[in-house]
This record gives sequence, C-alpha cells and structure tokens, in this order.
Amino acid sequence: MTAPATASALPAQTDAVVIGAGPVGLFQVFQLGLQGLSAHVIDALPQPGGQCAELYGDKPIYDIPAIAACTGHDLTERLCAQIAPFAPAWHLGQQVDTVAALDQGGFLVVTARGTRLHARCVFIASGVGAFMPRQLKLPGLEAFEGRQLHYHLDDNTSLAGRHIVIYGGGESAVRQAIACALAPEAIRAARITLLHRRDVFDAAPKQLDELQALRAAGRIQVAIGMPGRVVQQQGRLTALELTNPEGQAVELPLDMLLVRLGLVPRLGPIADWGLQLERKQLVVDGATFATSTPGIYAVGDAITYPGKRKLIVSGFHEATLAAFGAAEWLAGTRLPLEYTTSSERLQTLLGRRG
Amino acid sequence: MTAPATASALPAQTDAVVIGAGPVGLFQVFQLGLQGLSAHVIDALPQPGGQCAELYGDKPIYDIPAIAACTGHDLTERLCAQIAPFAPAWHLGQQVDTVAALDQGGFLVVTARGTRLHARCVFIASGVGAFMPRQLKLPGLEAFEGRQLHYHLDDNTSLAGRHIVIYGGGESAVRQAIACALAPEAIRAARITLLHRRDVFDAAPKQLDELQALRAAGRIQVAIGMPGRVVQQQGRLTALELTNPEGQAVELPLDMLLVRLGLVPRLGPIADWGLQLERKQLVVDGATFATSTPGIYAVGDAITYPGKRKLIVSGFHEATLAAFGAAEWLAGTRLPLEYTTSSERLQTLLGRRG
Ligand SMILES: Cc1cc2nc3c(=O)[nH]c(=O)nc-3n(C[C@H](O)[C@H](O)[C@H](O)COP(=O)(O)OP(=O)(O)OC[C@H]3O[C@@H](n4cnc5c(N)ncnc54)[C@H](O)[C@@H]3O)c2cc1C
Ligand SMILES: Cc1cc2nc3c(=O)[nH]c(=O)nc-3n(C[C@H](O)[C@H](O)[C@H](O)COP(=O)(O)OP(=O)(O)OC[C@H]3O[C@@H](n4cnc5c(N)ncnc54)[C@H](O)[C@@H]3O)c2cc1C
Repeated sequence: MTAPATASALPAQTDAVVIGAGPVGLFQVFQLGLQGLSAHVIDALPQPGGQCAELYGDKPIYDIPAIAACTGHDLTERLCAQIAPFAPAWHLGQQVDTVAALDQGGFLVVTARGTRLHARCVFIASGVGAFMPRQLKLPGLEAFEGRQLHYHLDDNTSLAGRHIVIYGGGESAVRQAIACALAPEAIRAARITLLHRRDVFDAAPKQLDELQALRAAGRIQVAIGMPGRVVQQQGRLTALELTNPEGQAVELPLDMLLVRLGLVPRLGPIADWGLQLERKQLVVDGATFATSTPGIYAVGDAITYPGKRKLIVSGFHEATLAAFGAAEWLAGTRLPLEYTTSSERLQTLLGRRG
Repeated sequence: MTAPATASALPAQTDAVVIGAGPVGLFQVFQLGLQGLSAHVIDALPQPGGQCAELYGDKPIYDIPAIAACTGHDLTERLCAQIAPFAPAWHLGQQVDTVAALDQGGFLVVTARGTRLHARCVFIASGVGAFMPRQLKLPGLEAFEGRQLHYHLDDNTSLAGRHIVIYGGGESAVRQAIACALAPEAIRAARITLLHRRDVFDAAPKQLDELQALRAAGRIQVAIGMPGRVVQQQGRLTALELTNPEGQAVELPLDMLLVRLGLVPRLGPIADWGLQLERKQLVVDGATFATSTPGIYAVGDAITYPGKRKLIVSGFHEATLAAFGAAEWLAGTRLPLEYTTSSERLQTLLGRRG
C-alpha cells in the first residue's frame, strides 16, 4: 500500500497504535508503557476485551496464570485497571481500514470513521479479525437499519411505549433482553419479546435464571420461530412474519428489532496491508514479533510462528517481546531488562513512586 | 550420563518430574495437569516460589498480566491455589543431583536426600540454579553446622532460654529476627540479636517498621560489626569476635548463630546432565521447549532461545508450550487446542464439574 498523504496533512506523531483491544492488545499497551511508549488503541467493537468480552463475558476462564478463575469481563476489567497508569487514547467502535508506511518514516493509520493517526510503530492485535454483528438477511430489511433495525443498543436509548423484539438465542441476546427488562421505568419498553428458533437459550446459569424469573413475572415474552419476511406499512416496519415450530406463518408485531445473532470475525482489511500471511495469519519473527514490514508488529490470535497456540497466556508473552522489539528498533540499540519490582524508572512510569 | 539402575530397582513410573518450584515450575504443574499428566515437584528450597518467595517475597510485582500488583509471596500463593486441583507430589528441601535417561525409556531422577523418581518426562524449571544459603566462612565455624550454626530454622524450633544471633542485613535476616521475637513464649529465645555490618537494613517498609518497634521494646537487639573469629570453649561455640565500626575487636556471646546472608544460585549438577548449554543456559526449541535430550523440557530463567527475556510472563508461556510439547511427544500425535472456558474435559480435570 502506498503512502497516500503528504507530511503537511499528517496529524502529530504518536509512539504507537495498537489495533485491537482484546486481552493481548490491552497487555500490549501495558508493555509499551513500561518501555516509555504511549499508545492509541483502536477497536471495531464499542468496548474493550475482544473475544473475552464478546464471546464469553460471563463464563469463567481457568488458565490465566495465578488467577484460578475469572470471567471474560473480569479479565478485561483487570487488564484495563493495569494499563490505566499509561492512559492510552481510546478509539472504539471503529475498524481500521488502512495502515500505510510513510516515505518520511512512521505509519498512517485510518479508520472507517475517519480517525487518522500518525504513529512511529504499529501493533496488530486483531485476533481472529474485527468482530462484526452477524446480520439478519431478509428482503427489504436492510433499509430500516439505524431506524427500526439495530445491531447494538445504547443503554440509555428510550424504548418507552414501544414493543422491542430481540432476535437471538445466545448470551448477548439473553443479556440484552434482561437489560431491557431492568431498564429504568422512564425508558423501559412497553413490551419485550425475545425471539429464537427454539425455546432453549445458551447463556450462563445466572443469566438463564434471571431470564426465567423475568418470563415468569411477565416482563419478557418469548416467541419461537424463524423470521421469513418483513411486514411494512407506509415505510414503517410493523411486524416480522415467522414460521413457527408447527410450520405455520405467524406475524410478530414490533416497533423495533434488535438483532443479536452473535459476532462474526472478519479478517477484513488486514489482508490488504502488504504483510506476509500464512493461512490468513500474520507471519512474525518469534524473537521480536515483527511482521514482514519493519515497524509493524503483531501479537495474539492474529499471528503464526512455530508452536503457536491461540491462548491468552501466549499473547501476553508475545506482547512483552513485541514491546522490547519495537523499543529496541526505535532506539537502535539493545535495551537491558529491568524488573518492575526493583526498577525506580519503571515504578515512576507506573505512578507507584512519589 | 549413563543409566545407573536396573528396571527391577526402579520406583513406579510417574508422568512428569518438575525440577524447581519457582513461579514457572508451579505453572508447569498446572499446564501438565491440563494435559492430563501428573507431576512430582522437587526444589532445593524448603518452600515453593523460587526467586519470588526468596528474593522479594514482600515486594510488589507490577507486570504479572491482569494483576496490577502482588508480592512475591502473593504470586506464589495464587499459583499454589491454581495447581491444587492437580495435587502434585512435593519434594522440598532437596536438590536434584542426577537426571539419567534409562535404556527402557523414561528417566531416573535422584535427589541429594536420596529420593528416587522414575518419570516419563522431565521439566527443568531451575531458574538461575538451586538457591543455596550464602555461607559464612570463618576458620573453625563449619564444624558447628547443624548444631549451633544454622542457615534455616524451623518455625517450631524451641530457642527457650537461649541467645540467638541472626547475621544479615537483608529481608530474610529481618524477617527471621521478627519471627523469633514474635514466637510463642514457650519457645521464644531469651535474647535475640540481629548482627549486621552497619545499622541499615534492606527490607520492605512494613518489616522495617516492625523491626523498629521490636527494637524500641527491647525485644530485638542490634549489634554492628563484621565477624572475624569464632570463640569456642570445650567444643561449644560461645561467641563471635566482631570488628566494630571503630575498628575494635568485641565479643558477641551466643548460643546459636543463624546466618541469613541471602541465597546464591548454583547451576550445580544441571551442567552434568549432558544437555546442550549456551552461557550456562539450557538451549531449547522455542516451539516445544524440548532440550537437546528428547523427553527433557526446560522453561523459565534456566533457558535461552532467540529473544529470551528472563521474565515471569514469558515463563508462563514457555510452560504452556512445553506441556503441549511433552503431551504430543508422549502421545505420538498432534493434540488439538481446547479452552478451559468451554471444554468439559478440562473442567473435569480441574474439578469444576460434577
Ligand atoms: C468460547 C471461547 C473460549 C475461550 N477460552 C479460552 C481460555 O479458557 N483460555 C485462553 O487462553 N483462551 C481462550 N480463548 C481464546 C482467547 O479468547 C483468545 O486467544 C484471545 O481472545 C486472543 O486475544 P487477542 O487480543 O489476540 O484477540 P481478540 O480477543 O480476538 O481481540 C481482537 C480485537 O481486535 C479487533 N479488531 C480486529 N481487526 C480490527 C480492525 N481492522 N480494526 C479495529 N479493530 C479490529 C476485534 O474487534 C477484537 O476486539 C477462548 C475463545 C473462545 C471463542
Ligand atoms: C529482585 C528481583 C525482582 C524481580 N522482579 C521481577 C518482576 O517484577 N517481574 C518479572 O517478571 N520478573 C521479575 N524477576 C525475575 C523473576 O523472579 C524470574 O524470572 C522468575 O523467578 C523465574 O522463575 P523460574 O521458575 O524460572 O525460576 P526461579 O524463580 O529461579 O526458581 C527456580 C527454582 O529451582 C530450584 N532449583 C534449581 N536447581 C535445582 C536443583 N538441581 N534441584 C532442586 N531445585 C533446584 C531453585 O531452588 C528455585 O527455587 C525478579 C527477580 C529478582 C531477583
């Protein structure tokens, strides 16, 4: 990819851009901070945590070293607390489209929302790709996106007086239904329907219990069926036509449709950045985690090297060596190892001294 | 090294022996457990934790992923709790002297105390070597070792009616003096003297405060000087002759001398096990952490590979890949990756099901 911008049009240079705020991208920020390098973090998702937060937020992980059990959300919170002293700049809810090496050195990173960053080095911690909501494909439905059809909902959107249908059978659909039912009365929906193809939901026991209680109290309805057709009147979406388990077509009236069919990772634009790939994984040097482009590093589930296992514990190690790799590349010299336990310099960076 | 034993003389075969109970050896036990392999753990020290427990037990570490701060002792406790489901067999306070490949397969591991283990594979997590107390060398002193001269003290040794001198200025000397002063009255020493060459002690602020309070209360005396000569009477050690800061010789009477000058790592016998070394570090394959002898793996501070940094976070990754390496070697086939969050098999091994 060629350099599309002139120096004059460039934003001020930052040390590092980390693409992906999964567990490995978050720890990358920490290790960069220990090297004295500040970071901007970009993620396509609206919140940090990557797969941990999106795919198993409430389920326990047992193999994080020295943490006998923690959920995906816990892990994310712990990592965010650990990197807080380094105050990264967050750019959430936007996919990185372009990473281009600049003639004058450094990289221009551009997101789908138009954020432009100019960085000395780039860390790709994009996991299995940018997570995008799995879309519901029905003829004519797409036209309602952003109005009556949504894939995400802000917590403080008012649904007062309206009938919301949440479509999905997994954890994110169940959580969303519960959140709607427990919303403050002033903004709570008049009617909340959870729609799934069968009456079995895949979520943590705690969520399932809560769902059960809210169904029993009549605060959440459950509809069973497969959506087949949209029903519209005067440019408004008024109902979904479902095929119920008996094979009959029934109409489910609604004011708003929230689709929560989970997320699908898309390698997406990374394939176009001119980096060496092997079966869709970035090829790195296992000593420095440098990609085939000097100044671009990659870590976590996105990469491959001999022996690579897609585990968080390995990503933490990779982020550590990548930070050393970049710091030494930028400094042009080998850097000594210091311990957080004994180094005044590191403790000062961490805000643990005067 | 040749195989010294016949099959008939061998103990029953175990899956794995882990040499070294530092943070990396402990996590090795965990990762072996996830592979369904049980482990015996051997350490020269009387307690687990390696450098973390011995060198900075009360000082905070800030770069363990997802743990913003924890002391060396905390980290050790957390790792011990995490491996508890796999109930390793512990062999503490004994150095491994011999690791020998057996003609019939597997390895014979022998400790200085005579423990003999027969294992399918061996994991060397020996860090910078077996930690041995730094010895006090004075003519004639050695003869008292185990009687009036000690380098370790059991918590329940009775010192009632005796004058104990603890020699050292670091954390372990300070902790030991405090422990003696706070011992149950029935076994508490009549007099406790902390001896150091100057009146400055290197320990965590909490310990220093405690020491100060116990000195103020007259429960710990401090003597300043350099020991130069032992004083004995009828085969008993009765005093140390010190050179005080003014250069004068003074006698410090005592019943028991506890030397706490810290620990010195000794690569020791590992150099004799026929494994490829590079500057005293074991050379490993970065994909499997196999040493030059098939069936022997090595992890943590003991090893070298391109990019190696002696950090705990890297040791955790190495232990993970070493467990895969050994499990695949034993199984003779490639093993799939499973997640603790979703695998029933792993959760059963961890005791988190039924
Ligand atoms: C059900 C399940 C259970 C698991 N259990 C365990 C377990 O017990 N132990 C364990 O170690 N591992 C487990 N894993 C694997 C673990 O979650 C991953 O190894 C880990 O999340 C990888 O972290 P990462 O930061 O590399 O990538 P991810 O977590 O995938 O995060 C990558 C982030 O990058 C973002 N991104 C990608 N491309 C772009 C772009 N172009 N622009 C902007 N943002 C982008 C994505 O939106 C995402 O948020 C599990 C995985 C799953 C699915
Ligand atoms: C002051 C200090 C501060 C540090 N701070 C940090 C920090 O903030 N972050 C970080 O990541 N790292 C830090 N480290 C480094 C960290 O402690 C080491 O990387 C870590 O302890 C290595 O773990 P290990 O299990 O490989 O080896 P070790 O902790 O060295 O444990 C090896 C064990 O093996 C035993 N052993 C060796 N040979 C034999 C034998 N033949 N028979 C029986 N037992 C044997 C030893 O007695 C020892 O207990 C610090 C180190 C020091 C000294």
